[in-house]
This record gives sequence, C-alpha cells and structure tokens, in this order.
Amino acid sequence: MRAVVLRNGELIVAEQPEPAPGEGQVLVRTRTCGICGTDLHARHHLANFLDGMTRSGSHLPTDPRADVVFGHEFCGEILDHGPNTDQRLAPGTLVVGLPYITGPAGAEYVGYSNRFPGGFAERMVLTERLLFPVGNGLSADHAALTEPFAIGEHAVARARVPEDARIMVVGCGPIGLAVIAALKARGLGPVVAIDFSPARRRFAEAMGADIVVDAADETQASVWARIGNRKQRAVAFECVGRPGVVQHIIEELPRNGFVVVVGNVLEPSSIDQVIAFNKEIDICFAQNYTSGEFRSTLDNIAEGRIDVTPVLTGIVPPEGVAAGFDALADPEKHAKIIVSFDVPAPDISDHISD
Amino acid sequence: MRAVVLRNGELIVAEQPEPAPGEGQVLVRTRTCGICGTDLHARHHLANFLDGMTRSGSHLPTDPRADVVFGHEFCGEILDHGPNTDQRLAPGTLVVGLPYITGPAGAEYVGYSNRFPGGFAERMVLTERLLFPVGNGLSADHAALTEPFAIGEHAVARARVPEDARIMVVGCGPIGLAVIAALKARGLGPVVAIDFSPARRRFAEAMGADIVVDAADETQASVWARIGNRKQRAVAFECVGRPGVVQHIIEELPRNGFVVVVGNVLEPSSIDQVIAFNKEIDICFAQNYTSGEFRSTLDNIAEGRIDVTPVLTGIVPPEGVAAGFDALADPEKHAKIIVSFDVPAPDISDHISD
Repeated sequence: MRAVVLRNGELIVAEQPEPAPGEGQVLVRTRTCGICGTDLHARHHLANFLDGMTRSGSHLPTDPRADVVFGHEFCGEILDHGPNTDQRLAPGTLVVGLPYITGPAGAEYVGYSNRFPGGFAERMVLTERLLFPVGNGLSADHAALTEPFAIGEHAVARARVPEDARIMVVGCGPIGLAVIAALKARGLGPVVAIDFSPARRRFAEAMGADIVVDAADETQASVWARIGNRKQRAVAFECVGRPGVVQHIIEELPRNGFVVVVGNVLEPSSIDQVIAFNKEIDICFAQNYTSGEFRSTLDNIAEGRIDVTPVLTGIVPPEGVAAGFDALADPEKHAKIIVSFDVPAPDISDHISD
Repeated sequence: MRAVVLRNGELIVAEQPEPAPGEGQVLVRTRTCGICGTDLHARHHLANFLDGMTRSGSHLPTDPRADVVFGHEFCGEILDHGPNTDQRLAPGTLVVGLPYITGPAGAEYVGYSNRFPGGFAERMVLTERLLFPVGNGLSADHAALTEPFAIGEHAVARARVPEDARIMVVGCGPIGLAVIAALKARGLGPVVAIDFSPARRRFAEAMGADIVVDAADETQASVWARIGNRKQRAVAFECVGRPGVVQHIIEELPRNGFVVVVGNVLEPSSIDQVIAFNKEIDICFAQNYTSGEFRSTLDNIAEGRIDVTPVLTGIVPPEGVAAGFDALADPEKHAKIIVSFDVPAPDISDHISD
C-alpha cells in the first residue's frame, strides 16, 4: 500500500507492506489524518521522544532509525475484522479512535511505530474497542479533528478549573484552540488567549476566546493584573510546547497560580523550583485523553457544540505531506492541515501554496 | 539587648538596639525559638533566598550583608503593646504566632530582616493580630514547635490527599516529621516514611509513620509497587529541600502520581518537564501556612493530638546557637534544637555535646 514514510528525517511516499488485523483489531481504510505538532517535533526528535517515554516508564518498541508512518489523528472506514472481534462496526462505517494498540512487541502507539502505520498510510490496523462510529453526518475531514480536540477536553477536565477562575491560554496553535473550545463548551470564561501571531489570534477569536492579546504588546503579568481580581485563581494553559515556556508562565503568574501543561516538549526543558515554591504554584501535566473524553469530544463536534471549521486550514494529498510539514512552520498560514486519501493530488496541493 | 546575630556568615552573640513596637505591634520577651532548616541554608545562602523572593514577586527589604537576627519559630511572653492595638493579650501571656510584619520599608519576615530581629534575640516586635495565646499548660519549648508543624499541616491541607491514597514522606527531618504528624492527625495512611538516616527513621516511627523504609535498602519505585494498588493515587511529600530531589521523586513515581513540595531549596534546582508530562504528574508547592492552619496546629499540640516530644532533641542558650547549627548538620544527632533564653548556658550546652 501507499504511505508517507519517515525515512532518515525525510517524509517520502513509498510502498509499505499491507497490514493485517490481529486479535481484537480491525483493518481500516484511511480517509483523512491530521498533521500534529508532535509529528513536526518527532520528525527531527523521534529518538528524544522515545527516550523520554522510556525514562517515563512507558517504553515503546520503536526503532527511530527504521521506517515510521506518522498519523494518529485519523478518520477512516472499517474494511475488515481480525479474529476475536465484536464486529459491532460494520464494514464501511466511518470511525475515529484512540491510537493505542498492542502488538507482538507490546503496547505501541499507532503513528509512532515501526509495526503499526498511522493515518499517513492508505490502510491501518486499529484496536476495535477504541473506535467510535462517526455520526450525525459529520465529514471525515472534521471527524479527524476529534483527536486533537480531545487533548483540550482532557486538559480542561484534568485541571478542574474553578468556575470563577481567571483563565489564560498561552499559545493558539491547534492545542491552544482545542483548549479554548473545551473551556467554552463548558461555559467557563472569560478566556484570554495570548499569542505573537495575528493569524493565531484570529483563530482563537473564531474558537470563542473572549479576550485576545498580542504577546508582543502586553506581558502575561499585565493581563493577570487587569482581568478579574485577586480572589479568582489564575489558571494558565501552556499550549506552546517549547522549552522555557512553563517557566515563563510561572514567572508571570500571580501567587497561588495554576499551570496546566498541555504542550508536548520533546527537547529538554526545565522548571526552576524556587519561584514555583515561593509563589505556591500548582502544576498539572495533561497528556492524551481517556476513552470517555475522546467520545464526548466526538459528540461535541458532531452535535455542533464545538465548531472545528476555523481550525481546518489545509488539505494535502500524501504527496503534499512534506510541504504540509513545512507550511505548518509558519503560524500565519495554517492551524491544522490534514492529509486526505480521498482526492486527487493536483487540486488539493493548491491549498498549501501561497 | 542580647541577640545571636548573623554577621559575615558567622553567628555571634552581640548587643542589638532595643526594639519598639509600632502600630498594631507588641513587644514580646522571647522564651524559646527553634532553629529551622531554612536558617541553616540561609546562613550561607541568604542572598539567594532574598533573590528568589524578589524573582517571585515578594521582595523583602533585607540587605544580606547587614546584620540579621534569625528565628521565626518563637514562643514568648507579651511585655508591652504599641499604639492602635486591641490589647486582648495581657502582659505575661505566653504566645506563638506568624512571623509576618510590616515596617517602614514594607512587608517583612521576622527572622530574615535587618529591622525586625527574630527569636534569637531577647526581645521581638511582632504583629498583634497574628499572635495566639498558648493554652492548656503547654510549655514554651513545645509551643515553639507550632511553626514548623504548621508547615506540615499546610502541606497536607493544600494537597487534599484522597482518603485511599498511597502516601510517602521523603525525608524525615523536622518538616517530614511535621507532615507525618499532620497526616496521622487527619487519620490518613498508611504513611510510608523514607530516609537514609537511622535516627530520622526512628523519629518518623515515633511520629506515627506506619511503614519506615531505609532509602539505602529500597528504591521509592519498589515501595510504590508493594504498597496499595494501581487505583490508589501515589502521593509523595518532598521534605528534603535539596536540589534534584523533586526530580528523583518524579522519576520514581507511578503514572498520575502527585508530588507535594514542602522542602525549601535555596540553591538552584530544576524539574525536567518531559517525564512529568509523560507520566501526567501533578505538582503542588506548599510554603508557609495560613493563620487558621497555624491556630489549629497549636490546638493539636496543646490538646495532645500531635505529640512533639520526640522531635525536640536539643536546647541551647544563645551562646550555643552556632554549635547548634553545626550539630543539626548531622542527622544522627538531632531533629529540632531550640534556643532558650530561660536557662543558664553551662547546663544546657551539654545537650549538644557528644
């Protein structure tokens, strides 16, 4: 089958072995799959990412020098069922799901594996019980955004933000936008969104941020001082995922502030204990999501409580993935680019040209 | 008046100006005052401590090169009232209290100030509304332990430890012992206490720790694996206050673990974001205490719910403070040494000899 393969740091379209579903697994034809910020980092820092997982007690049996097919924000159609499956989802059903799977080498992550190609391949093997049918006429393009928006849902659920909190979302890339959506879907706010990029600030506004701040114009400390009052807890969501940002947020936060770290930093990044201690900061690290959070995010999108339309800024064919990765480096151009197996190349590649 | 003065890194007994209570302040005759771990650090790192406070938005108007009289774990007797005081505490009343005060240069910390000598001086000026009378016949020596035990009470209150949590107290110096006491006073547990020092492990047992572990014999990860089960949240209290310990705890914690940082590190110390993110760790920094927590700690001690006796291992006269600081460097000898103005020097200095 055809797939976009990470090989020696390059993203190339190449033939890959046809996957076969094992016990409890299904074969899925990929319709669309989003390019995730972690993919951008992992393209150059996959060994770091794997090393971090190993040091965290969650070793993945992936060889970073061997071929990897990225893509964990997928939407596809059921093709076939492996042995010992419930078969509750008929062939042809449009599905999204969690990218966790168990193979001969143990637990793996679809999209960061040598054995389980992700959604940048024509076909994937996925875990049957982690899939959900896409309802309500939701398109595959929009359904594929369930995964990144579930990250926002999980972060907000884990943070247990007080109703009267002062809330700031730092960084308005796809993760920041997902956090804004999850906050607004719960009726929390006012939500301040802060970013250096004018385009990202417009995305934040489109997702429902109540106050949008240019990071070049105003410090976070100044924003905290002018919104709400001292009795309202200051809650900052770190959605940048670059080294040093958590530390900067802590330095700007009022006493007793709360940082929810949602951005995934693959390079080394550290937090200075002294200021966090003197200010009595709380820090919560939010990674991934539960199955229930994934499901409720899908429902929120399908039933219109979260409108993902503003976030979807580009669609590329598999041949356009490398250009898509490059295009995402410029925050003024794109929020989320998805890879589509549905449409012919020439029409679509225009989306990422100037 | 006579005081133990920090001058050029040395602790010397010297004459100091007689303090006079300002508005809302009272003059107190010091009876006893504990030597705090932060004092040990601050003796050599006072500039660091002040710099950390400034960077945290809580600047203290203290010149680290000028004389400072340490001592914030004090118990004393009311001598006189300044202007605009309630005078609800009659002269002669035994009191403990919070070491916060406001002077001509702004908010200060009694015991880390050039203007407000702490409890290593014969007399102190304190904030009237932050003082509590010592009741129930509690001795001044034991009452002085209210302050360090309030640190434990605050940490446990802030952490909101689930009732079925797996709990480990890392480091069994005075702060660790205070945390153990606060946990047990709330009926939480079983509480695991871990330390390299046999003496400190004995103190931990005396304070009610249910399982006491030699850190040289068993890793924290191994302890987590054998106590409770995966569904019980792992909550670790960092009570060592040395660089790198929080990071070590995070590395040993199971997924979704919780670190409550109670130890005060004055040297630079950093936390690596990657492992904390991958494990979805929560971190809570707990410094100081509220007035209510201070009060309830005093009640717990006075009414016998917390027995501080095992912790009090030495009493020195002012002339013995420098030796007391040195003695506390050896964990096998002492937990808490208090400075007493009540007793003549020769009898007491024996307490810290070999």
